[in-house]
Amino acid sequence: MKFKCTVAYDGTYFIGWQRQPKGRSVEGEIEKALHLIAKTPIDAVGSGRTDAQVHALGQVFHFESQLPMDSDAWKRALNALLPKDIRIVRVEEVASDFHARFHASSKRYQYIIHTGMYDVMQRHAMLQLNKPLDIHAMRNVIDVFVGTHDFTSFNATELAIIKNQVRTITRFELETHGQKILIHIEGSGFLRYMVRMLVAVLIEVGLGKLTKDQCVTLLEAKDKTVFTKNVPAHGLYLMEVTYDQK
Amino acid sequence: MKFKCTVAYDGTYFIGWQRQPKGRSVEGEIEKALHLIAKTPIDAVGSGRTDAQVHALGQVFHFESQLPMDSDAWKRALNALLPKDIRIVRVEEVASDFHARFHASSKRYQYIIHTGMYDVMQRHAMLQLNKPLDIHAMRNVIDVFVGTHDFTSFNATELAIIKNQVRTITRFELETHGQKILIHIEGSGFLRYMVRMLVAVLIEVGLGKLTKDQCVTLLEAKDKTVFTKNVPAHGLYLMEVTYDQK
Repeated sequence: MKFKCTVAYDGTYFIGWQRQPKGRSVEGEIEKALHLIAKTPIDAVGSGRTDAQVHALGQVFHFESQLPMDSDAWKRALNALLPKDIRIVRVEEVASDFHARFHASSKRYQYIIHTGMYDVMQRHAMLQLNKPLDIHAMRNVIDVFVGTHDFTSFNATELAIIKNQVRTITRFELETHGQKILIHIEGSGFLRYMVRMLVAVLIEVGLGKLTKDQCVTLLEAKDKTVFTKNVPAHGLYLMEVTYDQK
Repeated sequence: MKFKCTVAYDGTYFIGWQRQPKGRSVEGEIEKALHLIAKTPIDAVGSGRTDAQVHALGQVFHFESQLPMDSDAWKRALNALLPKDIRIVRVEEVASDFHARFHASSKRYQYIIHTGMYDVMQRHAMLQLNKPLDIHAMRNVIDVFVGTHDFTSFNATELAIIKNQVRTITRFELETHGQKILIHIEGSGFLRYMVRMLVAVLIEVGLGKLTKDQCVTLLEAKDKTVFTKNVPAHGLYLMEVTYDQK
């Protein structure tokens, strides 16, 4: 049987999603729990990686097992064994050809900026900017990036690895909640640091350091040296992974 | 010169306010920073202790120094040296007879209960109850505790240490924010675990396990054995310490 799991985690004390020789990874903790339940190693196949300190409320992975356990039993067993900073939100039985990475059709991220006074309690959960931002200017610049573009200027992927840096952003919105700014961004796929670099561009615009025309120029340059700013990982959340209905 | 400081801290990784032979305390971290700035040991005198994992957004302490530094310079210097889970909110120069503990006239606490699904990001910042509570019943029982009462039944202080367990609660309110319940409680002074035991009583009422009449009986019993429940420290915040204007 194959199961699709939706998982939330606080990325603060993880080296990221992916298991690595050293350090505490989300994938590693999940596979440890699966192993304990099944008494045999089981692969957890994620929809993709998240970087160190990046959080998730809706990361997806799949795994296979022939144990006589239904979705609810797996959810309960995993949550009983997982550490408190990982929580299985949902387990669903899926068709045997389902693949968490290959079949993901879009991903939605959220980035949280706190513009008010430094908040000790939320220091790992949002960027503490402590500066006012011009929301109107930020909203006004978003349409430069929505749609299909070559995002070479706004990601950290080596050109040699991924030659095609054209991606499609289907949603890019800015929501304010008191002194918090929530940036929602959704697309078919994102390159390394792409979300965080786009948020960094928006912040530059909000601080009055970049105009809309300059954003257009940066995007059209398709050049990795024209914009090198990034925002910290701890404001970023992977919110949802969408799969095509077949 | 004497300074009154208002300080916020995330209590998660502290053994509490008070310095102790072992472990990381808020007082200890602050005194370490004061020592580094003044190059001589300086006492930080708090308004009172907070227990391990209890947070504060408005704890108050005072210290004395003859350095030629004003309030703003102290605030900047302290925040530059303190760890990220402690933040000095305000520094004010006060009269030489000011005392953070002896002159405190009232304290206000907040306890946060999350009744929705377990929230990985807020697991240290609020009680994760994951059960619905009867807010109406909880609100209805509050007036049993408001005012001046002998709180012997609702604190963990040894009778031998503090014979007089009469305290006055001036404010006790319940506020809802989506799936969060904020309990505000203010009074001239609180006994050990008193706030957390009163929150535990409210939760029992909200779960339908205690009636208002039973609450009256428990309070009037003035007996430490009649109610022994407590709620975890990590939902509790010291919000404000008030000083009489003189």
